[in-house]
Order: sequence, then structure tokens, then C-alpha cells
Amino acid sequence: MSLAIKDDEIDIVIGAIHSDLTSFMNEWRPMYSRFHIIIVKDPYLKEELKIPEGFNLDVYEKNDIDRVVGSSTLGLFSGYACRYFGYLVSRKKYIISVDDDCLPAQDPKGFLVDAVAQHITNLTTPATPFFFNTLYDPFTEGADFVRGYPFSLRSGVKCAFSCGLWLNLADHDAPTQALKARQRNSRYVDAVMTVPAGSLIPISGINIAFDREVVGPALVPALKLAGEGKFRWETMEDIWSGLCVKVACDHLGLGVKTGLPYVLRIDRGDPIASLKKEWEGVKLMEEVVPFFQSIRLSREATTVADCVVEVANAAKERLGSTDPLFARAAKAMLDWVNLWKSVGSI
Amino acid sequence: MSLAIKDDEIDIVIGAIHSDLTSFMNEWRPMYSRFHIIIVKDPYLKEELKIPEGFNLDVYEKNDIDRVVGSSTLGLFSGYACRYFGYLVSRKKYIISVDDDCLPAQDPKGFLVDAVAQHITNLTTPATPFFFNTLYDPFTEGADFVRGYPFSLRSGVKCAFSCGLWLNLADHDAPTQALKARQRNSRYVDAVMTVPAGSLIPISGINIAFDREVVGPALVPALKLAGEGKFRWETMEDIWSGLCVKVACDHLGLGVKTGLPYVLRIDRGDPIASLKKEWEGVKLMEEVVPFFQSIRLSREATTVADCVVEVANAAKERLGSTDPLFARAAKAMLDWVNLWKSVGSI
Repeated sequence: MSLAIKDDEIDIVIGAIHSDLTSFMNEWRPMYSRFHIIIVKDPYLKEELKIPEGFNLDVYEKNDIDRVVGSSTLGLFSGYACRYFGYLVSRKKYIISVDDDCLPAQDPKGFLVDAVAQHITNLTTPATPFFFNTLYDPFTEGADFVRGYPFSLRSGVKCAFSCGLWLNLADHDAPTQALKARQRNSRYVDAVMTVPAGSLIPISGINIAFDREVVGPALVPALKLAGEGKFRWETMEDIWSGLCVKVACDHLGLGVKTGLPYVLRIDRGDPIASLKKEWEGVKLMEEVVPFFQSIRLSREATTVADCVVEVANAAKERLGSTDPLFARAAKAMLDWVNLWKSVGSI
Repeated sequence: MSLAIKDDEIDIVIGAIHSDLTSFMNEWRPMYSRFHIIIVKDPYLKEELKIPEGFNLDVYEKNDIDRVVGSSTLGLFSGYACRYFGYLVSRKKYIISVDDDCLPAQDPKGFLVDAVAQHITNLTTPATPFFFNTLYDPFTEGADFVRGYPFSLRSGVKCAFSCGLWLNLADHDAPTQALKARQRNSRYVDAVMTVPAGSLIPISGINIAFDREVVGPALVPALKLAGEGKFRWETMEDIWSGLCVKVACDHLGLGVKTGLPYVLRIDRGDPIASLKKEWEGVKLMEEVVPFFQSIRLSREATTVADCVVEVANAAKERLGSTDPLFARAAKAMLDWVNLWKSVGSI
């Protein structure tokens, strides 16, 4: 791991959707025990959390969220979105967050993957969004820029966000998951890459890390589906927030990387049951993607918080009439930026 | 390999820079013997070619090139650029071309990689340039689109170009090759991906395949360095042509893929000697990349040939005065489009 980063610059944020974290915490102990951990309990989860001994951690529950964000906003932090409260109250530079149904993966040689170290490497080496490198991340050991890569672009830019991937159960939407219920991802692609500037990406929140000081305000729980469930394939909050991250990074000349590290995602839930619900999230993307593809931020937007405000205003104006979800998302984003400022994070 | 493609729709084009093709052809025999092969001999190579028995092939030499393109243009087809003559005289839909210092690679399990089959799979399955898929090529067996990927973009677009990679000796420029003379690429990244629309890429000509009927005219030997040598790291003709391919594909809504297949690139040449030459190609890229990044093609450009003409005219106008190389490149492109038409290829 990068020597320039101290352990106390990192928070591990865990959204507790299930009460028993024993197995999850014990499996991650080799990677997590050095770091401060923030556990945010889903405010609608009734049972008491079971957390094994031996970690340096703070737990936030319904009352804490209520006190900071107010009971009218509490609903935004239900289910997977509870983790965003951890992003808000953290005081660290870097956040790493992995869903509680994921365990450390093995690389093709059988070694456990240290997801923390890989995420921090991704964030502390430059990103190269302005020209494609066919040999993937040129800052990986043994790699470099290929012939034809302009020297003036080789120093790269700051990397603000790292999106990891998943072995076993990949991150599909409900229809895909239902249609291919037995499909499992066993392909370990040994590469990190910068997502090119101008190219949008569906960032999954399952396995992420980011520079909280830089892009924190874009990690916003805004798009809450009406029939949202307790499975990733029934949610869209991370996709929306990820699109905010990407357009803000593109506008500000920051980098977003994807690829390594992998985590092992455990099977859970019944995709057929999810399929019987309305395909709300899938339909929304047909509006969401053209919106984000066409948005142009102004020169006055010089911070990620500025960018989030501009995206919110544009969403309200251009999407607000198509579905009330979008007007609510826009309001949630504006509230979030204010909250981020008042809680002292910017 | 895709069942929809017949063997006689493919030409393997080999640029013979060295006279003895025995080892090269024998190593590639398992993949090449089913297909028609075009060998183009570097017009400045004196020795007679040594080609093993058992292939269905046509050989083109200096006299043939002279007859078709004229002796004044012959120089454009020297060295690695001789292969472009093969692209011109081919009558097949698909071209596959691998440098004569590359052998079949092995995958991590030790199996020989069938580069022909992989290239054809890349070209005959859709590309997805308009939105990034974190799980790489969704048309690879066992892969799919991730949650959040708009359904309306999942059918993808036609893939026109496939850029393969290299194990052992990667494709570095002369300074990198000299500085890291012992560095070898041993990372086999098991992924194909579409290069996003709007993102430029330095396409190396070492290991490529393309749909000749669609993008053939953009495969043009135009940018000839004054001090060009016989090593890839002393040339830039493929990078320029690759940028033409990419901007044309972006304009026309076609896809460019990169990643698999790998070939094994054999060590050859003295990078230090190349370093002593002027870093002409490296310097030129500082002009070339901003030019291609800012070029906008008109609505009237509806074919790749149209796009090449517009790029040529823009290069003449905007780069012509910075270096006479660019004016010559522009002229070569216009001549090439005319040649392509007159030789009956469009």
C-alpha cells in the first residue's frame, strides 16, 4: 500500500442491512483491523447488531441519523443507503465501503485480495482520463504507456473514485438476474483502468472507495425508487450518485478508475420475486442516461458541491415533470449539499 | 469462431519486413492454414522471401506495388507500411494482420491463443461505445450488462476494428523502450472492451483486425517520419491511421474494441540505438493528439472514405504549416482514397 497514506486517513464504512455482522467482520479482519470503522445500521432494521470484538469502531443508529438529518429525511437512509450517513459523519480523507454480503476474494493464484490496499493504490496513483492506454493502468507495476501516448498527458490527473468489481454474483439488474439466475462471474480480469473522460459508467456501490474531501458531496442518497427493496437489483441510488460523481469528475478534470479489487459476492435473495415487482429502475435509466449525457456544467462550478447543485437544478428542470422521483432526487441533492456544509465536512 | 463467417471472407495480410518467414508461418500454421494469405514484401527488402509450403497465398513485391500505386508513391509502402498494399488489393470483408516478429501467445492455462478466432469474434459481436460496462465485453460468454446499463443501448453497434495486445515485448516508444530495456509484459488481462466513443486510442498496428468493407479507407500509410527506421518504436504510421479509424468510427457510430487476443512479441533490435535518433514521433504526438481531439466531421461525411477526406483537409489546413510531414500525410490520405476507389475496393 502507498507509503504516503497513514492508516488514520482512512475510514471503512459499513452499512449494516443485516443484524449479524460476525462472519463479515471476521472474514475482513485481516484487511480492516488496522483502520477506524464506521458502522451505520439501517434505521428500519429492528434487531440488535452483532459485531465481533477487536475493532476500532463507531456505530450509528436510527437516533443518530434522526438527530443529524431530521426525521423527515430519515427515509433516504434506509436499506443500502444507510452507508451515506457514514460518509457524512466521517472526518477522514479516504472512504472504503463494501456491502455486507461480500467477502474477500481470491486472485487466480489463490491469494486473498487486499481490497483496502488496492483501492488506496488506485486513489493515490494518477488517473489518465484524456487518452486511452491499451495496456490499462500505466501506474501498475510492470506496466507503462504505449507508443503514441502523448508525453504531455503522462503525468495524469488526481484519481478521486475507485470502483471495484465482484466475483461469483455479479451486479445485474432484476430482469437479468432472473433470466440468468444461475450465471456466476468467474472471470478475474487483472486490470485497473481509468474510465475515459466523457464516458458515463454505471457505478455500483457494492465495492467502492473515494477521496471524501474531493468528491464526498456527490455521494448522495437521492434517487429512491418507490418500490425499492432490500436487494441491490431493486435499487438505483448508487447508479444515480455514481453518474453525479462521473460528470463532476469529468468537469473538474479528476479521474475515476474501475477494475481491481474484486470482492466475493455471496448469493442471496430471490431474483424471481424481484422480477415480479415493477421494473421501475430499469425504465428510469432510459431517462437518466440521456440526461447525464447531455448535461453541461458551468465554469462557475469549481467544486464537486457546486457540480451537485447544478446537476440537481438541471434534474429538477428537465426531469422533474417526467416522474416525481426526479424532483425528490433534486431536492435531496440540494439538501445533502447543505447538510454536508453544516455538518462541517466541506 | 462465429458460424456466420465463412473462411473465404477473411484475408490474412503479412507485411514481410524480413526475408525468412519460415518460423513465423510454421508457428501460425494452426490458425492461418485455412485462410487465404496475402504477403506483401517490403519493396526495399533485397533478399528473396523464404516461405514454407502448404499455404494458399499470393505474394506482392515491389513491381506489383509500383504498377498499382506508381513509383512516386512507392516510398509510403516501405517497412511496416508495406502491409497497407495488402489491405488495398484484398477482396475480402475481413482483414487480420500480425507483425512478422510475433508468434501465437499462450493463455494463463497454457493453451495457444487462436488470434484469428478471437479477432473475428470481436468483429462479429456488437460493440458498446456509448456507455461503459464495468464487466467488460457483455457479449463474451458468461458476461452481461451490469445494473444501470440502459436497455436501449444493449443491442450495441457494429464493431469495425479490433486491436489486440502483446505479451513479452510490449509496444513502447523508443525512449520508454530504452529506459526500461528489460521490462517485459507478462500480465494477461482476460478481457475485451469497447473503447468509449469520444475517447482516442493509440492503435498499434502490430496485431489488428478490421472490417475492410467498412473502415478500409482509414487504414492509410500517411504519416511517414523523416528518420523512420525498421522498428515499430521508430514509426508512427499506425498511430496516425488508428486515430483516423477512431474518429471515423465515432462519427459514424461504429465500434472499436481492444484487449484480446494477445500475441507473443519477440525481442528484436537495439532500443538504445533508436534513442540516439531524434524523438521525432514522440514530439509529433503533441500536435497530433490535440488535432484529432478537436476535429469535428460534417454531416455530409457518411462513409469512412468521406471521413478520411475531411480529416486530410483539416490536417492540411491546421497542421500543414507546423511540419511538412503533415502536409505530406494529408496528400497521402487524399491519394489513398482515390486509389481505394480506382482499385475497385469501395
